[in-house]
Amino acid sequence: MRTTSATRIQHGMSSLPPARSLSRRDLLRAGALAALLPLRSARAAGAPPAAPDDRTARLVEDLVAANHVLVQEGVLDAYGHVSARHPARAGQYLMSRSLAPQLVTAADVLEHDLDGAAPGHPGAVLYLERFIHGEIYRARPDVGAIVHMHAPSIIPFGAAGEPLRPIYHMSAFLSGGVPVFDIRAAAGETDMLVRTPALGRALAQALGARPVALMRGHGAVVVGPDLPHAVFRSVYTEVNARLQAQAMALGREVKYLDAEEARRAEAALDGTLGRPWELWKRKAAGR
Amino acid sequence: MRTTSATRIQHGMSSLPPARSLSRRDLLRAGALAALLPLRSARAAGAPPAAPDDRTARLVEDLVAANHVLVQEGVLDAYGHVSARHPARAGQYLMSRSLAPQLVTAADVLEHDLDGAAPGHPGAVLYLERFIHGEIYRARPDVGAIVHMHAPSIIPFGAAGEPLRPIYHMSAFLSGGVPVFDIRAAAGETDMLVRTPALGRALAQALGARPVALMRGHGAVVVGPDLPHAVFRSVYTEVNARLQAQAMALGREVKYLDAEEARRAEAALDGTLGRPWELWKRKAAGR
Amino acid sequence: MRTTSATRIQHGMSSLPPARSLSRRDLLRAGALAALLPLRSARAAGAPPAAPDDRTARLVEDLVAANHVLVQEGVLDAYGHVSARHPARAGQYLMSRSLAPQLVTAADVLEHDLDGAAPGHPGAVLYLERFIHGEIYRARPDVGAIVHMHAPSIIPFGAAGEPLRPIYHMSAFLSGGVPVFDIRAAAGETDMLVRTPALGRALAQALGARPVALMRGHGAVVVGPDLPHAVFRSVYTEVNARLQAQAMALGREVKYLDAEEARRAEAALDGTLGRPWELWKRKAAGR
Amino acid sequence: MRTTSATRIQHGMSSLPPARSLSRRDLLRAGALAALLPLRSARAAGAPPAAPDDRTARLVEDLVAANHVLVQEGVLDAYGHVSARHPARAGQYLMSRSLAPQLVTAADVLEHDLDGAAPGHPGAVLYLERFIHGEIYRARPDVGAIVHMHAPSIIPFGAAGEPLRPIYHMSAFLSGGVPVFDIRAAAGETDMLVRTPALGRALAQALGARPVALMRGHGAVVVGPDLPHAVFRSVYTEVNARLQAQAMALGREVKYLDAEEARRAEAALDGTLGRPWELWKRKAAGR
Repeated sequence: MRTTSATRIQHGMSSLPPARSLSRRDLLRAGALAALLPLRSARAAGAPPAAPDDRTARLVEDLVAANHVLVQEGVLDAYGHVSARHPARAGQYLMSRSLAPQLVTAADVLEHDLDGAAPGHPGAVLYLERFIHGEIYRARPDVGAIVHMHAPSIIPFGAAGEPLRPIYHMSAFLSGGVPVFDIRAAAGETDMLVRTPALGRALAQALGARPVALMRGHGAVVVGPDLPHAVFRSVYTEVNARLQAQAMALGREVKYLDAEEARRAEAALDGTLGRPWELWKRKAAGR
Repeated sequence: MRTTSATRIQHGMSSLPPARSLSRRDLLRAGALAALLPLRSARAAGAPPAAPDDRTARLVEDLVAANHVLVQEGVLDAYGHVSARHPARAGQYLMSRSLAPQLVTAADVLEHDLDGAAPGHPGAVLYLERFIHGEIYRARPDVGAIVHMHAPSIIPFGAAGEPLRPIYHMSAFLSGGVPVFDIRAAAGETDMLVRTPALGRALAQALGARPVALMRGHGAVVVGPDLPHAVFRSVYTEVNARLQAQAMALGREVKYLDAEEARRAEAALDGTLGRPWELWKRKAAGR
Repeated sequence: MRTTSATRIQHGMSSLPPARSLSRRDLLRAGALAALLPLRSARAAGAPPAAPDDRTARLVEDLVAANHVLVQEGVLDAYGHVSARHPARAGQYLMSRSLAPQLVTAADVLEHDLDGAAPGHPGAVLYLERFIHGEIYRARPDVGAIVHMHAPSIIPFGAAGEPLRPIYHMSAFLSGGVPVFDIRAAAGETDMLVRTPALGRALAQALGARPVALMRGHGAVVVGPDLPHAVFRSVYTEVNARLQAQAMALGREVKYLDAEEARRAEAALDGTLGRPWELWKRKAAGR
Repeated sequence: MRTTSATRIQHGMSSLPPARSLSRRDLLRAGALAALLPLRSARAAGAPPAAPDDRTARLVEDLVAANHVLVQEGVLDAYGHVSARHPARAGQYLMSRSLAPQLVTAADVLEHDLDGAAPGHPGAVLYLERFIHGEIYRARPDVGAIVHMHAPSIIPFGAAGEPLRPIYHMSAFLSGGVPVFDIRAAAGETDMLVRTPALGRALAQALGARPVALMRGHGAVVVGPDLPHAVFRSVYTEVNARLQAQAMALGREVKYLDAEEARRAEAALDGTLGRPWELWKRKAAGR
């Protein structure tokens, strides 16, 4: 299937739909359909359109919300990206074309394969560091969503090599250790970007089975079983970094959650993640 | 009295009324009545509805405002809760069902007994840590309102075990000492949550007769004779923590209010609490 | 002249005009007249009203704006106050009745004499610390406007006794030294408030000929020849405190403006004060 | 050509068009034409108006946006300025008359020559420090846009003489070193302002071939080949200063980007600058 010229224009910056002048609901409806178009190969063969995949449409809607929430909560700025594994095909994931997260609409969400291609959208400009996502999805079958961020408070920890530790129950998920991925140790001199499958694999290896890895001189990657987990962990990794730095500055020994407290606290918090997720989505939607 | 299915739906997340599209006044009116329904047992027996309890209705309105004010002033985020003792029945208190404070409306405010049950609302999901409230109300007849918060600047003090002290007259109420409740010392390994009456009693014991106790790896509890006091103290505990950390970083001896200054300053400020309370409520109501 | 009951109601909290629902211009016009009423003693004697004093009306308008600007720029919260010397009578000054600065309208601005009375408004509740203003106006004929503030970044400097010094040209006015007024040294145990003429004189003496004095455990007082100077200095005293603390934390010797640089920079900046003043007023007015 | 009285009024503060009550598009259209008027000398000779110079009009529009973006992103407040070299005449540059950046409209943008005169606008009040711009444009043919800023986080570094270094890839452009220009070393006692061509040359010499120079006790100057580069570098110089200070406070050795990493990262980022630029412009325009 080839992208029509109309589709190509739709993905160009100059024709970006003005996200604020249409209702968000309109965009989500339109976008969810657009994102599904490449999936319906039967249509190209003249068959009637399949019924929309509701699960995918809802996931695209949540992915758009996740982009906006992460900006709202100070985790992403004009850079960084968030993805979700495809609900039906584990070898694919959904992520925006290369775009500032605040501007992402459902129409910008494209299917990527684990090698970093978006075969249904040959004309689209993709994020340079999409290999972060593909290689982690490949290495971690448990992962359903990934955030790559340059959140401000984590940068000093990555640069100084100071390990993040859980200062309170909200960030109990940090308890298993937060490795610092130093791209120079892995690959020598680079432009700091995870722009190849090999670099993506090196990062995935550093991450191991954990939810967060810092990236020296760059940012972090945060993963979870689904978008609410990945977004929650991104927000509270940033908060933990800020508060841990403040606690260290008080000049006393800091008492972090111990392993058992963290294990139990993470399990207890797990049942409440819908609360911030729904709140953040409402705020991001201006409701 | 049983909760009707209509009531149960009313308390479900999916049917949450859109707080912004109705006027706040409408919601408060409707909600205050809804909150009073379980109180009118005469109604179940076929008697005509009693005249609304105006004192309770006004308190519910203030409790809803307190939820919004505490978010607005950076004390609560998607977590934390605030309660007020019932104006007519000292063995009960008013608090929202489990909900992000920003989303609380009067319809979400339920009567709780000191054992942590909300008998009039058997279908409602309650805050896991409601035992904080019940056990402190039981131990402290002088307390009329309680805030449990994860306000950011206090977390480092709880983790480092550094005592908060009153750096200026606005936080003179801290002068009697701010204990740090370490749940591990009280109960060994836990999930950090005050999820049982026994843990609530341990926290109440640590608090003693004071207005604030930090909770290591978790947050704080703040109490007062009424909502304006509890909210004021929550806001200025957070501010004091931030400013005390900055003062300590200057590397000189910090001169805190002495006990007599604090006693007098707290008494002097007491007469002015209506000023921030009215301002904060107006701001939270968007007026 | 006695205050009528209508006037007394006008100054009560419950009848406070809703600042947002009337246009600010309406309020300013109405308020400027109301503030002038006590001045027109001829009216009580049956004479026709004098023509409005345009200079005073404009000053009241600027004083209202100064209240809002100081909140907007993070210098005042629900507390603190700002005054201006009366343009025609040096022994009087204009200041709001006791009210959160954000809520001040022209109708709240009352004439105070230097002893802290507002003879034209016997029913009005006045700021407890109005003696700060009266005693400084008495001691400093050059002063035309005064701000008393609890701006956050200055509190640590007052508590630690660390002198503020001008870290850049914007705060060159700090160069002559910033004394720390310790009310305990002046008057023993107090409630920290400058609530008597004697305490006001002690503070004025500590201030001397300078533009700023810190108040240990409390805040600061900032003066200037007029409102734009006093507001500008309040904003940049707060900024300087924040930046000076950050510079000290870098662990090197900090190079402040020397006395001659500061003298010249302050003179150079003096001609530009209209720029931030007009900008801040526009922002505060929502334009 | 002489400025008409109408033009002079147009540039006075009192007749400043209310930026919020007209649509920004209206102002940009009107302003772009106004800014071009002095260029059309043929018109004074009675010839029909030349076709508008579209390149210049677009640059004026971007310059207005740059002013607003720099305020929005916390780089400028009521002070500081941004300029762009004239697209057709390398010996001239475009910059607002002396005005708070937030208030700049296209009608305020004037052509300046490298000596700091705006010959087409003899009545206009110009920025005192316009010699920063003229002398750097003269010394650096590669420079197309300049920002002079007092961004808060950089002030401590200038005062303490601590060199800024690139803590992550976003600020890789800092890698060549960030000199601190001490005006006292260059010119003895001054008012700290670069208010003469000689001081402008001294600053340009300190800057050398680099993109950023700090100015002790004052701020910084940031340059780039065009407005998106200069704005991007201004924003991330401020962010880097904040994060570098935090990293240094952690008490470990901080690992900055090495020269080769920085060279490659800067090249890699270069292709993405349109992303923040378009986002920031949309936000500043309220879209």
